[in-house]
Amino acid sequence: MNFIHNIQSVVLIGSGNVATHLAQALKQQNIAVVQVFSPNPAHAARLAHTIGTRAVSDINIIDRSADLYLISISDDQIENVSDLLPEIKGIVAHTSGITALEALNKHRNSGVFYPLQTFSKNRTVDLNTVPFCIEASDPETSEALTGLAKKLSSKVYPVSTEKRKQLHLAAVLVNNFPTYLYQKAMDLLNENDLDFDMLRPLITETGAKIMEMNPAAAQTGPARRGDQKTINIHKELLQHHPEILAVYELISNQIEKNE
Amino acid sequence: MNFIHNIQSVVLIGSGNVATHLAQALKQQNIAVVQVFSPNPAHAARLAHTIGTRAVSDINIIDRSADLYLISISDDQIENVSDLLPEIKGIVAHTSGITALEALNKHRNSGVFYPLQTFSKNRTVDLNTVPFCIEASDPETSEALTGLAKKLSSKVYPVSTEKRKQLHLAAVLVNNFPTYLYQKAMDLLNENDLDFDMLRPLITETGAKIMEMNPAAAQTGPARRGDQKTINIHKELLQHHPEILAVYELISNQIEKNE
Repeated sequence: MNFIHNIQSVVLIGSGNVATHLAQALKQQNIAVVQVFSPNPAHAARLAHTIGTRAVSDINIIDRSADLYLISISDDQIENVSDLLPEIKGIVAHTSGITALEALNKHRNSGVFYPLQTFSKNRTVDLNTVPFCIEASDPETSEALTGLAKKLSSKVYPVSTEKRKQLHLAAVLVNNFPTYLYQKAMDLLNENDLDFDMLRPLITETGAKIMEMNPAAAQTGPARRGDQKTINIHKELLQHHPEILAVYELISNQIEKNE
Repeated sequence: MNFIHNIQSVVLIGSGNVATHLAQALKQQNIAVVQVFSPNPAHAARLAHTIGTRAVSDINIIDRSADLYLISISDDQIENVSDLLPEIKGIVAHTSGITALEALNKHRNSGVFYPLQTFSKNRTVDLNTVPFCIEASDPETSEALTGLAKKLSSKVYPVSTEKRKQLHLAAVLVNNFPTYLYQKAMDLLNENDLDFDMLRPLITETGAKIMEMNPAAAQTGPARRGDQKTINIHKELLQHHPEILAVYELISNQIEKNE
């Protein structure tokens, strides 16, 4: 068998935010995105059009000569789509933080190509700073995927499925949960005719601080100080917001106990 | 009585992070910081030395001719120190997010001068982007404090005590609680020999997204998608971390219910 050392052509399987960002970055690096597959023809066509390539929505007529088949779809569909893929010579890899490498077991050379970042439509992300977590069925595949990742990013790490799951969980803690808290803060401010813009500089500085300091050292506020008087004022303000109050009490207690 | 329209001299009462940042910003604007008071002579001397002014630790010999006495100390000490201040002609204001204006009732012209930001030692903060919340006993004091704040920041808002408390609570939600979550994420990564640096680009992007998007629109992740399979994997990973698990379950449930 001829191993692929230098990935030069990619079939993208998926058309969501991650697929879109990767497609554009691959194109910029002159990696050929030869097809975009999605079972939804309109979705496939939209992304294919954006990057000037062909769309395909029948998995049986997928191009079989690409170096890499990059699966960037819902976690619960990855194994299913992998199994439906025809026999191909190229590498099959997914971009999921939580799905095991084993989901791609049907294929001889399989891997994981996980960019640890939050991607949204209409937001450009500088992939060069994004950590790429690589895992592979064999050393040659690992080398090929690592080489590709290094064209996109300066931060490429070998990460096992188990460690990748921990990273994915940690990403939920530092992205989804703060975003939830921002939303609750916005709700409180809107109810009081206050503009959420007033909090934006604080949110920026909170993130900037973490770039330089350990979180434990960066912590401030009433719970850290054990300032019960302030905590009680806050709880009173939340008396008609039982859902925020529950979060407030739980996290404040844990900060106080330094758990 | 002669009202103070243009604050040109300040006695700083306090020597902590907020006092230090304000002292430096006032000095830069050529506002005279005529004294720094702290009951702890070493603390008073340290900050006074930094900005080239005098330290005082006996409240009875405080300079009585300043335009503003700016109290920047622990919330539970503000009323006490205000009551101990001798009779002065200048304005007395505090910098607290949670303390009522009434804590300064002993003084004829009192106010609040609250910078909505997190301040740490050894970190420079660009005060120009920091929202200053102003409240005052009377329109002339409000005007004087607003004028001073506008020398330091482009974002100056009149905010009542009740609304300021809501802002302070919201600040805990968007600063202290995310910082707690960053700490828990770091703990998880360290246990798995993973570097917290891998999460830093995600934290930066999470904050950057909120500068442009509403939090509800920025939300992603398994709870938003109702992806129980991923949620269950995360819960399993947290089986030996009951404190993080409790937070995970509570917030995930609320995101799912879109509460």
